[in-house]
Amino acid sequence: MTEYEAFAVELAREAAQVTLPFFRGEYEQDDKGGAAGFDPVTEADRAAEVAIRRRISERYPDHGVIGEEYGEDRPEAEHVWVLDPIDGTRAFIAGLPLWTSLIGLRVAQRPSVGVIAQPYLDEIFLGGPSGARLIRSAGETPLKTRAIESLNQAVIATTDPDIFTGAELGAWTQVRAAAKLARLGCDAYAYAMLAAGRIDLVAESGLKLWDWSALVPVIEAAGGEVTDWRGGAPNGNGQILAVGDVRIREQALITLRRAAL
Amino acid sequence: MTEYEAFAVELAREAAQVTLPFFRGEYEQDDKGGAAGFDPVTEADRAAEVAIRRRISERYPDHGVIGEEYGEDRPEAEHVWVLDPIDGTRAFIAGLPLWTSLIGLRVAQRPSVGVIAQPYLDEIFLGGPSGARLIRSAGETPLKTRAIESLNQAVIATTDPDIFTGAELGAWTQVRAAAKLARLGCDAYAYAMLAAGRIDLVAESGLKLWDWSALVPVIEAAGGEVTDWRGGAPNGNGQILAVGDVRIREQALITLRRAAL
Repeated sequence: MTEYEAFAVELAREAAQVTLPFFRGEYEQDDKGGAAGFDPVTEADRAAEVAIRRRISERYPDHGVIGEEYGEDRPEAEHVWVLDPIDGTRAFIAGLPLWTSLIGLRVAQRPSVGVIAQPYLDEIFLGGPSGARLIRSAGETPLKTRAIESLNQAVIATTDPDIFTGAELGAWTQVRAAAKLARLGCDAYAYAMLAAGRIDLVAESGLKLWDWSALVPVIEAAGGEVTDWRGGAPNGNGQILAVGDVRIREQALITLRRAAL
Repeated sequence: MTEYEAFAVELAREAAQVTLPFFRGEYEQDDKGGAAGFDPVTEADRAAEVAIRRRISERYPDHGVIGEEYGEDRPEAEHVWVLDPIDGTRAFIAGLPLWTSLIGLRVAQRPSVGVIAQPYLDEIFLGGPSGARLIRSAGETPLKTRAIESLNQAVIATTDPDIFTGAELGAWTQVRAAAKLARLGCDAYAYAMLAAGRIDLVAESGLKLWDWSALVPVIEAAGGEVTDWRGGAPNGNGQILAVGDVRIREQALITLRRAAL
């Protein structure tokens, strides 16, 4: 494990100490969505991000930080940590243990290390230069995406078709019709299961930098790939396609491209 | 805890010993859906039901059993156990720890004891004559639904809007528009979170007897109620509405009734 990989795991454990006592407990909850619709943020999101940022600034004071709740510090630095302290705040609120803490390190603008952590499940999915692994108290197991040749064998996922635009929904519906099985409601946990070889494709839109940066190193080190809906590198438009086996990507892109931004 | 409650927990632990080693492992998988679409069943479903049925017939040879995978034995008996060894087989296949083992006891056709068990999470939600509780290795906590007055404060859930008919989808969409927050993809775990006071309403259709019988005692003992989409006792039509606080039921039924069978 590299120094930064080990530190990312340390940050995930720090976040867990903050989030876990709030989960299924009492906490303040605000709506930051306003007229655009309910967009919840809790005391747990904020407290976890504060704790992680403090740890980073103590250890690497020249590194940058971009977090969902507290914005940007030194975003032009060579090393930038990208944080979503609780991805899936809605799941968190509903008591469902599929929310995750996402911690990514970008080096020269490229995702380099990523952690997807679910503390109630005692699971830390880590990816980076030294590979991809699932870390639990009982030990570590390597992560490897599954080999499949065709979309009609695929288990696919998206969080909620209701966030898609009309064109995106049409494209998703066609991909879903071709796939073997679809799951909804997983947030970033779907990408962890893709790295673990249980889900083959995840397509989502509206993702922010902190929603996807941590996913890329986990998936790539496990053998998968992450692109936008045109097959290029993920960019600021929020459309993300992750596949465990690159052979099914073109079959999905035939459809998704028509809704690509 | 009554004798039957304790036995239901024993059955859940028996099921866990069978299912857990298969979860995220290798197992046989069949499609029992045929032309009607993919309907997966795994070696884990079948082996768990065999184990539970064996235990029931040893202990209560005159009781009836109705199970998803192996049909009916003595369904007219005074005491009938209703089993879904893995509710959420799709979640199981996708590696998502929200599948559950559902074990219900019906006495004179009425749900009397229910268990919703998720062994990867070390969670057994039990409801019956002596109350509702969550049992974990670390101890027990009582289950209580949440008090809310209005649907617009509600966290609601359904597994997959794609299983709804057109009329049902229209009704669900209206309920969703009124609610604060909706979650998808939970299968029976949503009802466990309703009993735990984290979700306020679950509406689903197409449920079989083994999908809902175990839920009723858990929810009722926690303070909630389960009906069909007309507000009557659940029946064979598969439409189920569960609420944690009965005050929001009529607000949902105004809409759901229009799609009621």
